[in-house]
Amino acid sequence: MCGVTGCFLSEGGNAAYYNYVMLHANQHRGQESAGICVYDGLRLVGKKGMGLVTEVFSREDLDELTGPVGIGHVRYSTTGASELVNAQPFKVGYAKGELAIAHNGDIVNSEVLRRELEASGHAFVSDTDSEVIARLLAVELTETDDVFEAFERVMDVLIGSYCLTVLTSSGDLIAVRDPWGFRPLWIGWDDRGYFVSSESVGLDVVGVGGNRREIKRGEVVWIREGEMESKTLRRERKAVCMFEFVYFARPDSVIEGRCVYGCRKRMGYRLAEESPVDCDVVVPIPDSGRTAALGYAERLGVPMEEGLIKNRYVGRTFIMPEQQERVESIRVKLNPIRDVVEGNSVVVVDDSIVRGNTSRQIVEMLRSAGASEIHFRVASPPIISPCYYGIDMATYEELIAHEHDSDVEAIRKDIGADSLWYLSLDGLVKAIGMKKSELCIGCLTDRYPTPRPEDFEGSSEVEPIEQ
Amino acid sequence: MCGVTGCFLSEGGNAAYYNYVMLHANQHRGQESAGICVYDGLRLVGKKGMGLVTEVFSREDLDELTGPVGIGHVRYSTTGASELVNAQPFKVGYAKGELAIAHNGDIVNSEVLRRELEASGHAFVSDTDSEVIARLLAVELTETDDVFEAFERVMDVLIGSYCLTVLTSSGDLIAVRDPWGFRPLWIGWDDRGYFVSSESVGLDVVGVGGNRREIKRGEVVWIREGEMESKTLRRERKAVCMFEFVYFARPDSVIEGRCVYGCRKRMGYRLAEESPVDCDVVVPIPDSGRTAALGYAERLGVPMEEGLIKNRYVGRTFIMPEQQERVESIRVKLNPIRDVVEGNSVVVVDDSIVRGNTSRQIVEMLRSAGASEIHFRVASPPIISPCYYGIDMATYEELIAHEHDSDVEAIRKDIGADSLWYLSLDGLVKAIGMKKSELCIGCLTDRYPTPRPEDFEGSSEVEPIEQ
Amino acid sequence: MCGVTGCFLSEGGNAAYYNYVMLHANQHRGQESAGICVYDGLRLVGKKGMGLVTEVFSREDLDELTGPVGIGHVRYSTTGASELVNAQPFKVGYAKGELAIAHNGDIVNSEVLRRELEASGHAFVSDTDSEVIARLLAVELTETDDVFEAFERVMDVLIGSYCLTVLTSSGDLIAVRDPWGFRPLWIGWDDRGYFVSSESVGLDVVGVGGNRREIKRGEVVWIREGEMESKTLRRERKAVCMFEFVYFARPDSVIEGRCVYGCRKRMGYRLAEESPVDCDVVVPIPDSGRTAALGYAERLGVPMEEGLIKNRYVGRTFIMPEQQERVESIRVKLNPIRDVVEGNSVVVVDDSIVRGNTSRQIVEMLRSAGASEIHFRVASPPIISPCYYGIDMATYEELIAHEHDSDVEAIRKDIGADSLWYLSLDGLVKAIGMKKSELCIGCLTDRYPTPRPEDFEGSSEVEPIEQ
Amino acid sequence: MCGVTGCFLSEGGNAAYYNYVMLHANQHRGQESAGICVYDGLRLVGKKGMGLVTEVFSREDLDELTGPVGIGHVRYSTTGASELVNAQPFKVGYAKGELAIAHNGDIVNSEVLRRELEASGHAFVSDTDSEVIARLLAVELTETDDVFEAFERVMDVLIGSYCLTVLTSSGDLIAVRDPWGFRPLWIGWDDRGYFVSSESVGLDVVGVGGNRREIKRGEVVWIREGEMESKTLRRERKAVCMFEFVYFARPDSVIEGRCVYGCRKRMGYRLAEESPVDCDVVVPIPDSGRTAALGYAERLGVPMEEGLIKNRYVGRTFIMPEQQERVESIRVKLNPIRDVVEGNSVVVVDDSIVRGNTSRQIVEMLRSAGASEIHFRVASPPIISPCYYGIDMATYEELIAHEHDSDVEAIRKDIGADSLWYLSLDGLVKAIGMKKSELCIGCLTDRYPTPRPEDFEGSSEVEPIEQ
Repeated sequence: MCGVTGCFLSEGGNAAYYNYVMLHANQHRGQESAGICVYDGLRLVGKKGMGLVTEVFSREDLDELTGPVGIGHVRYSTTGASELVNAQPFKVGYAKGELAIAHNGDIVNSEVLRRELEASGHAFVSDTDSEVIARLLAVELTETDDVFEAFERVMDVLIGSYCLTVLTSSGDLIAVRDPWGFRPLWIGWDDRGYFVSSESVGLDVVGVGGNRREIKRGEVVWIREGEMESKTLRRERKAVCMFEFVYFARPDSVIEGRCVYGCRKRMGYRLAEESPVDCDVVVPIPDSGRTAALGYAERLGVPMEEGLIKNRYVGRTFIMPEQQERVESIRVKLNPIRDVVEGNSVVVVDDSIVRGNTSRQIVEMLRSAGASEIHFRVASPPIISPCYYGIDMATYEELIAHEHDSDVEAIRKDIGADSLWYLSLDGLVKAIGMKKSELCIGCLTDRYPTPRPEDFEGSSEVEPIEQ
Repeated sequence: MCGVTGCFLSEGGNAAYYNYVMLHANQHRGQESAGICVYDGLRLVGKKGMGLVTEVFSREDLDELTGPVGIGHVRYSTTGASELVNAQPFKVGYAKGELAIAHNGDIVNSEVLRRELEASGHAFVSDTDSEVIARLLAVELTETDDVFEAFERVMDVLIGSYCLTVLTSSGDLIAVRDPWGFRPLWIGWDDRGYFVSSESVGLDVVGVGGNRREIKRGEVVWIREGEMESKTLRRERKAVCMFEFVYFARPDSVIEGRCVYGCRKRMGYRLAEESPVDCDVVVPIPDSGRTAALGYAERLGVPMEEGLIKNRYVGRTFIMPEQQERVESIRVKLNPIRDVVEGNSVVVVDDSIVRGNTSRQIVEMLRSAGASEIHFRVASPPIISPCYYGIDMATYEELIAHEHDSDVEAIRKDIGADSLWYLSLDGLVKAIGMKKSELCIGCLTDRYPTPRPEDFEGSSEVEPIEQ
Repeated sequence: MCGVTGCFLSEGGNAAYYNYVMLHANQHRGQESAGICVYDGLRLVGKKGMGLVTEVFSREDLDELTGPVGIGHVRYSTTGASELVNAQPFKVGYAKGELAIAHNGDIVNSEVLRRELEASGHAFVSDTDSEVIARLLAVELTETDDVFEAFERVMDVLIGSYCLTVLTSSGDLIAVRDPWGFRPLWIGWDDRGYFVSSESVGLDVVGVGGNRREIKRGEVVWIREGEMESKTLRRERKAVCMFEFVYFARPDSVIEGRCVYGCRKRMGYRLAEESPVDCDVVVPIPDSGRTAALGYAERLGVPMEEGLIKNRYVGRTFIMPEQQERVESIRVKLNPIRDVVEGNSVVVVDDSIVRGNTSRQIVEMLRSAGASEIHFRVASPPIISPCYYGIDMATYEELIAHEHDSDVEAIRKDIGADSLWYLSLDGLVKAIGMKKSELCIGCLTDRYPTPRPEDFEGSSEVEPIEQ
Repeated sequence: MCGVTGCFLSEGGNAAYYNYVMLHANQHRGQESAGICVYDGLRLVGKKGMGLVTEVFSREDLDELTGPVGIGHVRYSTTGASELVNAQPFKVGYAKGELAIAHNGDIVNSEVLRRELEASGHAFVSDTDSEVIARLLAVELTETDDVFEAFERVMDVLIGSYCLTVLTSSGDLIAVRDPWGFRPLWIGWDDRGYFVSSESVGLDVVGVGGNRREIKRGEVVWIREGEMESKTLRRERKAVCMFEFVYFARPDSVIEGRCVYGCRKRMGYRLAEESPVDCDVVVPIPDSGRTAALGYAERLGVPMEEGLIKNRYVGRTFIMPEQQERVESIRVKLNPIRDVVEGNSVVVVDDSIVRGNTSRQIVEMLRSAGASEIHFRVASPPIISPCYYGIDMATYEELIAHEHDSDVEAIRKDIGADSLWYLSLDGLVKAIGMKKSELCIGCLTDRYPTPRPEDFEGSSEVEPIEQ
């Protein structure tokens, strides 16, 4: 996953600062690298680095990135290794000047497109989809000055998820959402100018008030000389990622008009209705299971208690030394409160189960803290297939639901709970409040809105792209 | 505030790793600097640095700090500037070898003691109380080999709060809690050896089971050659810091036999009983107000909702640029969910109010998110005086309750809420479940269990310490 | 200027280490950035960074760059800003795999070539000539698998100086010297494999004995599967840079069969013959003027004295604060010995004068140290024009000889010496011992062996490169 | 070895900058750590770090160290491990305020003094002699405000070499040279204020003109409120380190009125007279043997040639990987010029031989470069004993002259030269031009001007220092 931002200040100012603040609000979408690129009136200048936004940028860095238009990116790698060369925004010089691109998503046919470009003699410096998009765009913009025309051709060939912010050395800001609408992308405006952010919380934090909307699927927004123009260039069937609602997005974000917090609360209600338990206490897995747990407890009329405490300082850098007896990695992150669980029948609520290791450790930990019964409730259906659109869900083999062939009883035994219930697909869809046909639920059904990457393998005839 | 740890591995092993893990569990007690010092069989070797435990120590660092006995420290400065020279453990060489000391607390008469040592020709390299203690201890240990005898004399002169872990170049580990018992200090043991940690969560994370207890006030625990010996050397009236229960300690910690989470929940109950509101929703200030809010909502039978979302990545390093219009520092940390508050009468629950700035901003933010009424409930009484025992509560002038002379109505107006209620002192004491006379409530009453630092000023006759 | 290296270990081993050692021997050719790229048996992996070879690479870095074939680069920027993105080796993925390139030199028509590639839709990530070469090469290697055929086409269009080492993901090492032979490039071999280095000192330091030779101008050396094949693809008139002999190369290097030290000594002899002075002492400007000064003094029979002492620790990072009175930047680098110069008629010998500022300061400094007469002797002719082939000689305007229109008397007055003599062009050529027509002396005569960059400006018709 | 500096600006200004520049000029005296401490009008503030002066201090650092009085230090460790805690200036707070101390030298009886202080209850944070001096000084200054009186008592007990600069929180600058005068220390003054530097080159670089002199042995210079006062408090027999002249000091420095360059040149003359060779060429070991080689060659009338070229970029950080065949560490530093040595009878001149390893490798290298004969000439007598006064000459066991019991023929065989000659002690003394009785030649004769450290061992009665 990744987050993208953009900012066009009509009256001048420092776009880097606003991007910094918006990236920080989207930080949960990617902690591996961060970058900002601005138009300084003449050229594109940028900085990117490994780590959090606050680690990559010092005050001096932000002061040096002067310019009224800019884009930003936070990255969690799904394609491309964890190296600085793969960090974004990705900047290139081409026939008409420079362009920089920030991308959230995964292109399903990127290997094909890359091979086609290579067959024409193009060479790549990174492993990323973003470079594929940037090179395709440079090819098209070399042919035409019309951004819409160029994107029409680029969107003709791109299959997969892509929310983009693009910056040109003419000082234009472009925002694009793919024709399926997999991932969120917002735009807001006021007297200061235009602001683009993956999630609506980015607009909240820079104080953009009522003038805001989601960029539509297939829409290209082109802001130049302070004027915004927009065209919807291509539409496929709507396929909004259900996992944004379940886990990925911040609860205070709005996606497709729905408050994510509310959706999660309703998942908790549904879960209680589908699978009530005569229990003493409901305990969330912090922080991801908390909202659904609130809903579950409220609907059942049972108290919710914070029976598992999360260490706020757990991060990428904790060193788990092997030599230490009896120090378990789960304990470093989560610690149970004996007073809450001892002698009690406990319902544990989490948003989802991917690999299952953590769930198993939590059950064990609660058991040893004295819980008499442990009922595991999951606010989404079993994940049985990988995500091809930007969420790192591992391969088939690693998915616990795939491993047990969706046999819930087998999974229950594996994690050691006294009972286990996954929210039904129907319940999930109702909680979100969109039509099932408008959601991407590929990872739950193995049926995807686009061909899968492997569907392009062996496509024998690689033709050079027409130029 | 600070956190201290210690570890004595009877069968050998790497004490640095265990200290690292325990410090990480105590990280909330201090994020400014971290340090570990171990006895390598010959000498004391250590590393300390500015930042979080995970930032200061790499795997290589931990591998190099080999030795079966060691102590650790995390620091949030109350005395001494934020410089590496003030980081701990503080190590010195003296007549009998070396000793290192880690200290949590504040010595009320440290200036007097320092001047006395200086009058005898002693010179100091840092500004810390810890160096004062270390030099006093070195003086006494030069005279006697009996650790109890040495501490008896040191504890005779030290006034204030001090939980100490001490390491000597004989490979001894010593743990000390002051005669008032202001701050927590735990010891646990099993077949691996002895483990000391400010909070009980440190013992949880290294897997120490049932063999554990709080070190008593005035107690010195001396572990040498694998044997633990203990003496209670001095007792003053019990004065456990109420703020550990209210805010400072982790909810999963146990202090004086009481689960902190339970105390906070009961503060919520009491608050509901003292000041119920006919409201639509109860919203906690995350994360500190959540447990009390749960109690408040449960007692009133009103739903608690997470109406304020905290950005998990806020930390020391966020840069708040001045040039940005409409970007407020509060928004970077907290964002309201409009769906939860709009049109509703909202009760906001926080653990305490110190300066009041954040409270004011939160009220404004909720108001602009559409709350019809905002009732502020605080799970502790007004703070009217500074803390002299290690909590950074600012000077009198900065305390909002002091500024308004404890006039709750004036404070309410200042922060802009529709109503405001502080938990009564009686309610707080009952929620904690200890006798009022056993708690330090100096910051609530301006009556302290020891003389204050200013009481020592002008003490004209400075006599050299006898040697 | 830059330095390039390459290494192919027939029996396996760590090519990164050998490149590291050879780069260190070529460090004087570029101190801005350093990089190494190796073939790890599957892919190309590398590291590059700003600073000296010893600053960029740690032992861990070298251990991680495992692979038997690799190339290296040290850079002093002439094109492209001082940024990491411009550091080399430059690596790309293309239709047939990956290739990495290290380049010493300057391409005169790189702007034209870049515009042609861009017109075909290519996009660039850096400002460097090296990326132009890499993209041209990728285009050609996409068409053919024959390295010689590909380079034939690339060399058809490249005008300027280029010594290249190239690494492919087939594990081939390629070394190329341009058809004019501007800059040196050596290859050596023994039972360990093949070693390529800009200067012969690189081969000395890895212990390559007698089996070595200079790569010929226009020659491409292709090493694959342990076999070396070579073809001379294109020849222009020989144009070896005279400044390599005068200043740039290490004195212990051999260029075109000539020991650089010997050439410099002979420049001193010639200088003495052309312009003897009845003086007390000959003083070199350390370290660049020392060899010529030895020759000058020996021929005149006057003692040479080290009357100016250089601070060995002067480097990129010295901060020259403005606020300090009477601290001169020249004094930080050079300090005169009063005993050597006081009351004496002094001949000062330097290798060349570019901007003249340093010369002026040295004359002043010696004057104030008591020299009775100061005679400046320069071991090369006046530099009147820029270098277009890789040496950073500034623009016309900055050259002192250009400023004074080659009027030696005017220059003498400007630097304040009692007399000034530049070695004649004829003397220089004789000292080097090559034909005048085989040397590039463009900066001395304003007549260059190729068109200049400005000769390509306004070339209106930019045609896409055929593909 | 170390270097110390100090600066008192009468009219205000930034003393840190001047110390920075002077430390840079003394950088050859210590490359391990660097530090500056200034009086900011109220307190002493400083920075120190591992590495070169230019690595430790950024422009921001220097800007932050504002204050008109300051001291500086560069360190090459002789006592104390290579750790930041041992870096200087060493700063302490004591009864009257603060003091910081920078020390060049070695205290012979520091262990005794330390034990005495410890017996009185003092505790130490470092391993350095400097802390011993600082604590002794703090003890005495606690008793008296008269700096001379305090130093009189301190100098009564200190045995060994010490050049000190001291800074107090009254803004006083104090400079002290030990009663033997082992190491150099200069003071200069002009309208800007006072400048102190280990070597005279420090004064050159800040532009101090004629008003300068060496601080006398046993002298204390006290500068306060812009006035300088001086007293000579104690005198022992003069014992100036001969190795400063031979190797350690910069050639452009003046010590005891003698230009170091001239002394070295005369060592070369003497060497030629004592041991002339009928040779083709004289080759110096760069850079240390160059001046003596010039003298040797001049006196013999044989040309000196730079037949060994030193890589200017060799430093602390070069990684010598073990896996590499045929890469010798000597080659990384020095490379012979075949044209200069092939077929020739070569005289190699170095300043001294300590361990002999380098000499052996050089002889081998010249032999393999074709030298027909190799005659080694050393510009100082054999080193047979350690230095106790600050020069890191290793233990007895490591000294090649000690190993071979001063048998020159045995040493010759060991290093493989055709002949070997060491300058006689008489020749050395005459070249320096001081009386033999005024030089410290302990490392040449095993007879030292003070007791040795081992002479204090077993001194049974350790009495507390009187206070």
